[in-house]
Amino acid sequence: MSTLSQTLSATERTRLRRHAERGKTSRADLLAVLDAGMICHLGVVVNGTHLDGLVCARSVFSHSVNYRCAVVFGTARIVTDQDERLAGLRAVTEQLIPGRWDAVRAPTRKELAATSVLALPLTEASVKVRTGPPGDEPEDLELPVWAGVVPMAVSFGEPEPDPALRPGTVTPDHIRLRSGRAGAGRSS
Amino acid sequence: MSTLSQTLSATERTRLRRHAERGKTSRADLLAVLDAGMICHLGVVVNGTHLDGLVCARSVFSHSVNYRCAVVFGTARIVTDQDERLAGLRAVTEQLIPGRWDAVRAPTRKELAATSVLALPLTEASVKVRTGPPGDEPEDLELPVWAGVVPMAVSFGEPEPDPALRPGTVTPDHIRLRSGRAGAGRSS
Repeated sequence: MSTLSQTLSATERTRLRRHAERGKTSRADLLAVLDAGMICHLGVVVNGTHLDGLVCARSVFSHSVNYRCAVVFGTARIVTDQDERLAGLRAVTEQLIPGRWDAVRAPTRKELAATSVLALPLTEASVKVRTGPPGDEPEDLELPVWAGVVPMAVSFGEPEPDPALRPGTVTPDHIRLRSGRAGAGRSS
Repeated sequence: MSTLSQTLSATERTRLRRHAERGKTSRADLLAVLDAGMICHLGVVVNGTHLDGLVCARSVFSHSVNYRCAVVFGTARIVTDQDERLAGLRAVTEQLIPGRWDAVRAPTRKELAATSVLALPLTEASVKVRTGPPGDEPEDLELPVWAGVVPMAVSFGEPEPDPALRPGTVTPDHIRLRSGRAGAGRSS
């Protein structure tokens, strides 16, 4: 059985208490939320929230946001195996800029010694997602107020070359793809 | 003296231990970071981080991100004064969509009773900001690798009207301004 089809079993810590109907229970849902993130907030819990839209209702009380979030509980371990450490660093780099790892100078032994890699098992987690239009009370639907969703997303801008860049250095495909800029170009 | 010119005095909890040169020490810097956010993560500490750019260096080790973040310590109090409660709810709403509060139905007494408003004084806080190009080691500067910054920002898309919207309802200015769409338009 693929791990993607596994179900997240609620524990006392991950059982959703508010808006439980927004909960997602498959491991695939969990990985989708985590994969969509560029950073997560690591505190007593890991807490990463993506905002997808501002949900504008007719009453101020019913305003909401569309979001995807995951809360993962667990104790992180320090990764010591060298191959696993490199795989972890590559995964973090590729999550931010796909294709970057193979384009740059690999870490030296000294740089690796100065870097800690932590691993956290995704065994105890909850996922919560809100999508769709506002949920106004029936008696508010006739109010003359615009209601709907203003979608939100992270966007990437035109790459800004390092002033110290060697003249004539071409902007590589993986940078143009990340910034959403089509066509070839030179940054000098 | 304006509070904006006040300095954040470091405490044992807010003293920056890593990359202290990225610290900002004025109250105006703190308010600027908090004002820029749509959400913050409330945990054992309040932790809000804005990503402004992916900093691409020639070595994988020197990759970084441009960011603005603030950490605020303190004990929140429950706001009980009715005017202060309304002012707080208005501020949260206007932070997300300027102009929305006056366009929608105000909260009823019952809705207000179902809402808690918390206040947290900004008296113990640290601010950290990174801007600018990558900081490669001198010996890496001649490598034939593109380096620079891919800027990031939150962008807002075309408003999506509620399917239950009364036909002919005009998309108001405050919604078009939030979504960055110029010109008048009807959403029906």
